[in-house]
Amino acid sequence: MTTTYRAVQAVHPGRLELVEREMPAPGDGEVLLEVEACGVCGADAADIKRVAPGQPRVPGHEAVGRITALGPGVPSLWRIGQRVGVGRMGGHCGLCGPCRQGHFNLCANQPVVGATCDGGYAEMMVARSSGLVAIPEELDSQDAAPILCAGIATFNALRKCGAEAGDLVAVLGIGGLGHMAVQYARRMGFKVVAAGRGQDIAQAALGLGAHIYVDTAREALADALSAMGGAQAIIATIGDAGAAAAAMAGLAPRGRMVLLGICQDALPVLSGHLVGGERSVMGSITGSPHETERALRFSVLADALPRIETLPLERAEEAYRRMRSGEVEFRMVLTMDRADRRG
Amino acid sequence: MTTTYRAVQAVHPGRLELVEREMPAPGDGEVLLEVEACGVCGADAADIKRVAPGQPRVPGHEAVGRITALGPGVPSLWRIGQRVGVGRMGGHCGLCGPCRQGHFNLCANQPVVGATCDGGYAEMMVARSSGLVAIPEELDSQDAAPILCAGIATFNALRKCGAEAGDLVAVLGIGGLGHMAVQYARRMGFKVVAAGRGQDIAQAALGLGAHIYVDTAREALADALSAMGGAQAIIATIGDAGAAAAAMAGLAPRGRMVLLGICQDALPVLSGHLVGGERSVMGSITGSPHETERALRFSVLADALPRIETLPLERAEEAYRRMRSGEVEFRMVLTMDRADRRG
Amino acid sequence: MTTTYRAVQAVHPGRLELVEREMPAPGDGEVLLEVEACGVCGADAADIKRVAPGQPRVPGHEAVGRITALGPGVPSLWRIGQRVGVGRMGGHCGLCGPCRQGHFNLCANQPVVGATCDGGYAEMMVARSSGLVAIPEELDSQDAAPILCAGIATFNALRKCGAEAGDLVAVLGIGGLGHMAVQYARRMGFKVVAAGRGQDIAQAALGLGAHIYVDTAREALADALSAMGGAQAIIATIGDAGAAAAAMAGLAPRGRMVLLGICQDALPVLSGHLVGGERSVMGSITGSPHETERALRFSVLADALPRIETLPLERAEEAYRRMRSGEVEFRMVLTMDRADRRG
Amino acid sequence: MTTTYRAVQAVHPGRLELVEREMPAPGDGEVLLEVEACGVCGADAADIKRVAPGQPRVPGHEAVGRITALGPGVPSLWRIGQRVGVGRMGGHCGLCGPCRQGHFNLCANQPVVGATCDGGYAEMMVARSSGLVAIPEELDSQDAAPILCAGIATFNALRKCGAEAGDLVAVLGIGGLGHMAVQYARRMGFKVVAAGRGQDIAQAALGLGAHIYVDTAREALADALSAMGGAQAIIATIGDAGAAAAAMAGLAPRGRMVLLGICQDALPVLSGHLVGGERSVMGSITGSPHETERALRFSVLADALPRIETLPLERAEEAYRRMRSGEVEFRMVLTMDRADRRG
Repeated sequence: MTTTYRAVQAVHPGRLELVEREMPAPGDGEVLLEVEACGVCGADAADIKRVAPGQPRVPGHEAVGRITALGPGVPSLWRIGQRVGVGRMGGHCGLCGPCRQGHFNLCANQPVVGATCDGGYAEMMVARSSGLVAIPEELDSQDAAPILCAGIATFNALRKCGAEAGDLVAVLGIGGLGHMAVQYARRMGFKVVAAGRGQDIAQAALGLGAHIYVDTAREALADALSAMGGAQAIIATIGDAGAAAAAMAGLAPRGRMVLLGICQDALPVLSGHLVGGERSVMGSITGSPHETERALRFSVLADALPRIETLPLERAEEAYRRMRSGEVEFRMVLTMDRADRRG
Repeated sequence: MTTTYRAVQAVHPGRLELVEREMPAPGDGEVLLEVEACGVCGADAADIKRVAPGQPRVPGHEAVGRITALGPGVPSLWRIGQRVGVGRMGGHCGLCGPCRQGHFNLCANQPVVGATCDGGYAEMMVARSSGLVAIPEELDSQDAAPILCAGIATFNALRKCGAEAGDLVAVLGIGGLGHMAVQYARRMGFKVVAAGRGQDIAQAALGLGAHIYVDTAREALADALSAMGGAQAIIATIGDAGAAAAAMAGLAPRGRMVLLGICQDALPVLSGHLVGGERSVMGSITGSPHETERALRFSVLADALPRIETLPLERAEEAYRRMRSGEVEFRMVLTMDRADRRG
Repeated sequence: MTTTYRAVQAVHPGRLELVEREMPAPGDGEVLLEVEACGVCGADAADIKRVAPGQPRVPGHEAVGRITALGPGVPSLWRIGQRVGVGRMGGHCGLCGPCRQGHFNLCANQPVVGATCDGGYAEMMVARSSGLVAIPEELDSQDAAPILCAGIATFNALRKCGAEAGDLVAVLGIGGLGHMAVQYARRMGFKVVAAGRGQDIAQAALGLGAHIYVDTAREALADALSAMGGAQAIIATIGDAGAAAAAMAGLAPRGRMVLLGICQDALPVLSGHLVGGERSVMGSITGSPHETERALRFSVLADALPRIETLPLERAEEAYRRMRSGEVEFRMVLTMDRADRRG
Repeated sequence: MTTTYRAVQAVHPGRLELVEREMPAPGDGEVLLEVEACGVCGADAADIKRVAPGQPRVPGHEAVGRITALGPGVPSLWRIGQRVGVGRMGGHCGLCGPCRQGHFNLCANQPVVGATCDGGYAEMMVARSSGLVAIPEELDSQDAAPILCAGIATFNALRKCGAEAGDLVAVLGIGGLGHMAVQYARRMGFKVVAAGRGQDIAQAALGLGAHIYVDTAREALADALSAMGGAQAIIATIGDAGAAAAAMAGLAPRGRMVLLGICQDALPVLSGHLVGGERSVMGSITGSPHETERALRFSVLADALPRIETLPLERAEEAYRRMRSGEVEFRMVLTMDRADRRG
């Protein structure tokens, strides 16, 4: 039996290194996973850059793996050998105010995977069972992985955006999150505008299901949307506060912008525009395990899969660098293969 | 029969003058009203200051009066002698997109009373019948008047704020709008925090129904609300963008700020705060005639009346000046008495 | 110029006859239409059977035609030559309680087309302009016609059913309404169960987009749904109260049955089932003109067109008889061609 | 230390007997309570009548007491000495579908207190910690007890009934549940109609906050409501299916009946009434612990307390008999006093 596993950990000041670690034992309410795939998300950059000196941290919050050991008190919902996923929210406490209201994604005592606990850039990973997500048979691990963050985040944003079948919905930013948003939006019956910078992504966006592509390098999104009568919802997946706020002028009366990303700067929101048309801006943050399972099932039902490139775990540094440089079209996923090492 | 009436009109550059005008005839779909009372709203200031040279305009969008003449095509809903009100939105077209969706307050072709058509600082007034509001018997005209703008604006904001019975709801700004918001909020079953600047208003706010008063000169509202667990909703009646945005930090998870006023500057909204707690900011703008009738009936049902001072029409200049200087505690209402002039 | 037109009218006791009528002039707020197509709906049977002695009535409430004359007071939204549709609700009054709340489909003073005013089994038809619906360019008149009742009824039922993307939604009854419901439901992202009697319709139902077909002659729908985990919504298009009530046992917790048809008998609803799972039953009745335009646009956007057979107006009796006998697979549409008669 | 406690248990065929029991030890995730008060609910009758031979069961699901012992795995939310309540739902599992969606009151694996596990007609009681409710300082135990079932059931029904401030809301049945519904409805800003049988209750109903009392022995509720314009919601607390269904005719368009009680017979629901006015019927079942805490806080905030009579535990048989015979005006509560037995 193997007593160690390989992991890629972030070390100060923002580097990644491949290390050999001792096999951990899952604690109370925890499981040990053999990771099969882990997505490389834009948010990983923040985790990697902010890692504290002397406190290495394994990034990765789009992890799919099989349960290999159960800690004490893990409910019977989970069993050895089962394939499960772990997203950004690492398992709610069940006891805080939001939890007792059933708003598990807002749990006040939840580890943030890859930031406050180790994540999925590794062959093995320990996870709280309350954060686990069952993976449907129909999905490969590498396809399921990005749904655990990019997928659920946009799936839930669309559920909460207030738009109805046939309404105009714009997706601002066509990267890891945006390319899932476009697919989901199309398959929920919306009229979908994909808004990206440049022409490179245009064909891909239309191929994902967008009805219209707006190149924000050539045309202000707000103007384009207004010319179409205004959008009922804008799903903003970008981190540029100014661009997000400017797009709001393209909202129809009663329209809503849903923010998914955290912008460095404050959004300059025009109250007259909100008041005059009863518009709104809301934030949405991933979702509960049950909602993530909904997103996974919907991906299967409606054939909305992430477009991925894969690299093996040991090339995590390269995967991360390519993601950061914008060379990855939509989503990079790390894959792990312990089989060869077992032999 | 009288062939003229007195009106107070705004003339460039922002002065008010009492004039004698020819009696108008109501046009298609319009009625002629004998005004009995008209509230003096903070928004009147913008109308008065922005009046164009050579185009005098009668301010006033909280008008209550009796119908004295019906233009052609006025539906049988309205009859001579009936007491009716006119608010800020001067009568929806029924044909634009928002109207055909039943969102009459968002009508794209609606006159703005006191700004794009003459309002209620006058003995007589012409109004579109689609904008009329029936006044309940139980209300005096002077008590009903402020409900046509300050009342409906806050009533609807509270209906849309997402809070439920027992939730903590803060009212930011305890003036004309705020003092109605506090009363309504209390009578809808919320736990009400009134937030104003200074101690002068504290007793009055508690008397209106607030459970707690926060003096924002001494304590940041966000801190006070956070110490109470966070507000489910904040009704912002103020025009200070910075103060409104700062208060948002006092929203509980899933909390919502409803903006009623139009701030000069953009609100600096922190996306991380919205996203992390699924919070939102929305705008709300008065309401339809039917909703205004709801607000009036609720005022009667729950005994939530505006606290007013009255002055006769001919002292409109003084009334306006006192409102602007902050000397009026909550709402100034102009009263008209043609009876004596008829004799 | 032609001074007469042909119409098919119902006469007591439930017969249809082709007659020549004088050309009418549109009254106040009305338009005259040259009808191009009119669907034959199940509800026509009630109109035809209940026609009073000596009071012939033209059935048909899925009419599409071109405006050939405008009565006085028709708003500029409508113009000569424009192609428009008329559904079951013949034009709301704008003044009653529901209208002033924007719930136009619930107008208390609305003619019921084909029942209380003449409908579309005719070459010409007079219609209230408030009930008109703009027809998108992309749709043939004969394809648009069934959307004016079968389409909007099911489109709105699905919007109100409370289900979200990926949820299990069952459509009970796969006829004129049901076959639209299946298409719309699939294109809104639901997992769709079509439930019909017999195997004949199975392939067609799957072809329309159903994921699963349940033959209620072989298996109780409630059992089938329960085996799948329960339906979040059941759209009941049938008139059999017992069958509708029995299907409710297949609702998941928080599930909702939406009734579209009017059953002769009372539905025997089990309170324990409702209470124990917070389930509900609601009724839904067509929609406003704006909502119908949404349904039309969604039909274009998502390629959800009625499956129709057509017969010329003069064969209305045959069309009606075939519809009643169940020989029409989904929808029969009458077509009119005045061109040949003009020459 | 006492090693036994007194309990009143139901034994076949439907009798109550006072017994001395061995002190139990709380199991995994359970607490031991020293009961201070327990309401006598109408639902107790079903529990008592259906008790199986040889399987005595302690009734009572409106229990308030202090925690005297914690079983293994009880979260730190709960501590020795804390005053807590237990309602009908005895503690959700956290793992089933409804639980993972945050709908704890619909948990599929929840003990039903007084029916499938022992309840509060006793000096001591074991309870699952997931079902515990914190009792606010401001409430006496005997006042808090009825809020744990009658209170939360009606509080939640009102939250879900769709009515808004000023809407007409009828409460059908003015007993244990109804008298809480009337108080809550008034304090949420509704116009409240209390409907009971006979004149005896009229004054009390008005005293509780009803604006209007309808004596259903003299006048059909549906007629009375229709004469007032129709109710936006009817909260049905009765077990008579025919009466509940008949009252639905008094619903306004878009009105909703919320059922709380389980009727023996099926409700004969008229589909035409539902469809024609888009009305609905839904069931509502108590609430989660967090929602119950909301109801408790709202009771304190709005001064909405149950009207109770009390009897000591040893007179449970008499309390039950009086409740059943209708002699108790609103709510009977059993009180326990172990202090004297300790000495």
